[in-house]
Amino acid sequence: MSAITSLTNHQVRLAQRPSGTPGRECWNFTEEAVGEPAAGGVLVKTLALSLDPAMRGWMNEGKSYIPPVGIGEVMRAGGIGKVVASANPKFAVGDLVSAALGVQEYCLLPEDQVKRSGMFKIDLRAGSMTQWMNVLGMPGMTGYFGLMDVGMPKPGETVVVSGAAGAVGQTVGQLAKIKGCRVVGIAGGQAKCDWVVNELGFDACIDYKAGNVKAGLKEHCPKGVDIYFDNVGGDILDDVLARIGRGARIIICGAISQYNNTTPVQGPKNYLSLLVNRARMEGIVVFDYADRYPVAVAEMAGYLKDGRMKSKEDIVEGLETFPEALIKLFTGANFGKLVLKVAEA
Amino acid sequence: MSAITSLTNHQVRLAQRPSGTPGRECWNFTEEAVGEPAAGGVLVKTLALSLDPAMRGWMNEGKSYIPPVGIGEVMRAGGIGKVVASANPKFAVGDLVSAALGVQEYCLLPEDQVKRSGMFKIDLRAGSMTQWMNVLGMPGMTGYFGLMDVGMPKPGETVVVSGAAGAVGQTVGQLAKIKGCRVVGIAGGQAKCDWVVNELGFDACIDYKAGNVKAGLKEHCPKGVDIYFDNVGGDILDDVLARIGRGARIIICGAISQYNNTTPVQGPKNYLSLLVNRARMEGIVVFDYADRYPVAVAEMAGYLKDGRMKSKEDIVEGLETFPEALIKLFTGANFGKLVLKVAEA
Repeated sequence: MSAITSLTNHQVRLAQRPSGTPGRECWNFTEEAVGEPAAGGVLVKTLALSLDPAMRGWMNEGKSYIPPVGIGEVMRAGGIGKVVASANPKFAVGDLVSAALGVQEYCLLPEDQVKRSGMFKIDLRAGSMTQWMNVLGMPGMTGYFGLMDVGMPKPGETVVVSGAAGAVGQTVGQLAKIKGCRVVGIAGGQAKCDWVVNELGFDACIDYKAGNVKAGLKEHCPKGVDIYFDNVGGDILDDVLARIGRGARIIICGAISQYNNTTPVQGPKNYLSLLVNRARMEGIVVFDYADRYPVAVAEMAGYLKDGRMKSKEDIVEGLETFPEALIKLFTGANFGKLVLKVAEA
Repeated sequence: MSAITSLTNHQVRLAQRPSGTPGRECWNFTEEAVGEPAAGGVLVKTLALSLDPAMRGWMNEGKSYIPPVGIGEVMRAGGIGKVVASANPKFAVGDLVSAALGVQEYCLLPEDQVKRSGMFKIDLRAGSMTQWMNVLGMPGMTGYFGLMDVGMPKPGETVVVSGAAGAVGQTVGQLAKIKGCRVVGIAGGQAKCDWVVNELGFDACIDYKAGNVKAGLKEHCPKGVDIYFDNVGGDILDDVLARIGRGARIIICGAISQYNNTTPVQGPKNYLSLLVNRARMEGIVVFDYADRYPVAVAEMAGYLKDGRMKSKEDIVEGLETFPEALIKLFTGANFGKLVLKVAEA
């Protein structure tokens, strides 16, 4: 028996589709023996997983931009791991890689799935392992392409971003500052607001939990909102719609306030502001920009290096804490990019 | 006393702001003597007025793309008239003109308002007087620039337009056919649907009053909707959002289903379909394209001449019928562009 086949893989599988907030009843904890990679395949040991609001959508049935996770399947998750066995000439034992590893300790990828999982080697000179799941990872790329390609920021414009202390929000706000914009965040609680202004350099941040979004937008966006990067939907989207300026661009990245609804999604009742202001609301899915990740990563790594971009991660430990860790995203209990540490490097 | 100052001008003024559908109580009928134009001014006799859904919005208080009509002011309306006295070298007695004349029999424009009213001479060789309020007028220009500039149609794409038998809708659908698209209308009642398909050449038309919009979209847009030109909002916007394809463009031109609401506007609860489909929803206001009207009018006049574009008007007579005529727009009782004939040419 090889060293590898003596290993046990602990996994978290989708047991049932949630109604509302996904509790423990949605998950099955399973274990199975780890297999050896066949020709072209790779075995990766999971070090850390990225926990993202989008995961809630993957748990629902029905057509979306990506198929849902099937009942009984290992929950989908991106993460960073270390190659522990390789039958693929592009990857060597010891390589650190980013890939769709799933919520499990080991991920055995057959040849045809190595590419499909988006696997690539990460370079710790560009950023730390957790930064590769944050500013340099999917949230960072989402913020980069959403802001740059859909938002098209011009110096002097006012950019508002919700979920400002979250993984996507922190990238969007800092990048907009670098591009010469005035940046107003919206976040939950004074601590997050203070951090966003004092550490990340946003011009202002509105605490939505204090219930003053409308007044805050009026105060901090006296010339109206040119770009709104929306991660939350709901009432906040309506409040911003009421303050947009002529020709505004609204990037629809997510709607975390609505993901656990058991009632229909709340549509933006102020959407006719798009007409009055000749404005645009457009959706973005980061995977469409995969070809351009390397260029964006190089730019962002430069900002990390010269200190213009900071990166905050909220690290939770242990595969078994996954169900509770995921819920932190929806209550806003996480502070920074939520990462589940699974094993030591 | 000159012939002019012996004339009486009958006018319809806004008496109060409506709550819901605007009844007779919203209007005052007034009369006053007609004045002579001062240097640079023009006196125009109203022949016909364009009745448009947008008028409902002008009756509300509050900021929009254009200031509201003030209480006591003559109701704003575009129309066609004949110059009966001129102290402006650009206009001669007898000229037929298009301008913001207001709901009144005579419009006296001082020099500074001649330009502000958008006044220009119309050429009956390009189209009839009513066509100048329809395909060649504001509705036609709205359809033209909304479809071409925001929709950006490509041959073979599927275009859906609501209010298909209305002034904007008939232009959009016919123009989209000319541009090589598959066109599906949505209209109220079998007669309008039949006309849109049989006379205007749409590929299909869904009767929303028969309550089969979802099923109709599924049947007639098997490959999804690439462009949706929205004149109505409400449930129909949601039904179309559920059927859009990747990279779809939704033009927000109006929301006639919502204009007489006394409750908040119904927001599109399926707006996250914009995210899933990387789609865009964008507002349009026709006045932004005023510089390019002549080019669009020339193109549209060509289509009228060669028979590829048809134009249907619903003509109501008499200034005193204005209050009831306006309401026809909101019940869908008009069939074609609604025109109020005020006087004989």
